[in-house]
Amino acid sequence: MSLPNNTALLVIDVQKAFDAEYDAYWGGNRNNPHAEKNIATLLAAWRSKNFPVFHAQHCSQNPKSPLHETHVGNGFKPESMPLPGEPIFKKNVNSAFIGTDLQQQLEKQGITNIVIVGLITNHCVSTTARMATNLGFTTTVVSDATATFDRVSYDGRHFSAEEIHEVSLANLHDEFATILNTASVLA
Amino acid sequence: MSLPNNTALLVIDVQKAFDAEYDAYWGGNRNNPHAEKNIATLLAAWRSKNFPVFHAQHCSQNPKSPLHETHVGNGFKPESMPLPGEPIFKKNVNSAFIGTDLQQQLEKQGITNIVIVGLITNHCVSTTARMATNLGFTTTVVSDATATFDRVSYDGRHFSAEEIHEVSLANLHDEFATILNTASVLA
Repeated sequence: MSLPNNTALLVIDVQKAFDAEYDAYWGGNRNNPHAEKNIATLLAAWRSKNFPVFHAQHCSQNPKSPLHETHVGNGFKPESMPLPGEPIFKKNVNSAFIGTDLQQQLEKQGITNIVIVGLITNHCVSTTARMATNLGFTTTVVSDATATFDRVSYDGRHFSAEEIHEVSLANLHDEFATILNTASVLA
Repeated sequence: MSLPNNTALLVIDVQKAFDAEYDAYWGGNRNNPHAEKNIATLLAAWRSKNFPVFHAQHCSQNPKSPLHETHVGNGFKPESMPLPGEPIFKKNVNSAFIGTDLQQQLEKQGITNIVIVGLITNHCVSTTARMATNLGFTTTVVSDATATFDRVSYDGRHFSAEEIHEVSLANLHDEFATILNTASVLA
């Protein structure tokens, strides 16, 4: 990896609530089934170099959500399981910077570069990436280490997961984040 | 209007830098040419009822940007010109909540509901709406009082302004904001 050694990997909401059995709850037809595998590869690379790893864990305030703390879906997926010593930021909104001390922890460690992966592209990943950049961090989002679901809009129009994913990345590109795939991050 | 009387209208970046002569700078082929007219209609309605109006003014730190403070484009368009007493929040990032005291001013006035209009749908409007909701405000985005431009993505794919606009609103819908058109807000 050619990234500076104070580049943090920020893993957003890679929780069991996004296992296939809950797909319909989120809109169905998830794209990029390889996201978890790519996240595991990135985590292994970060850990092998002792680069900093941060985890965000969504704790929904909606008791019916599979991300609620009383639900098994709140737990981390095996591919993203935090190791002892890796900080976990519990949040109940999309941005991992709101209601947490993530910004303070990054600044305390002198971290200015963040690589963001996780779920889902258009909500927590995009919101956290937008805010990271607006707070002054240099931000990368890994295109094949995030994924999303089909979505029905306010007017009933249906958008495919792939279209939502790609337009969300286009919105981040050049304005909020560098968009790279896993292989490019590791190159 | 059936909105509560402490509903703020937040007008984002309706500046001359988004006049037609600069279209190419932002990606070209802007959609919804009626945004400014709808914003003027909403401003007139808010003012007639003495509802609170807030303005965000983007002051780019890039000297080459038409939004830089030395550039004529930094000025407000006639349709959005603030009246004396209406607070203006100068910002240099996308979110009107970062580097400003907008949140504090809204809270000081007991405002919990925000209606967001302005430019551009996928950048400053979306980022401010996402953060408003994550900070606890009840947020509406007015679909025909915002607009955007064509966009080329990280991989060279081209997206039309209309597709960017509609997918950005789909991403906000249900998760971050209620999406209404001008007529529905005024109804």
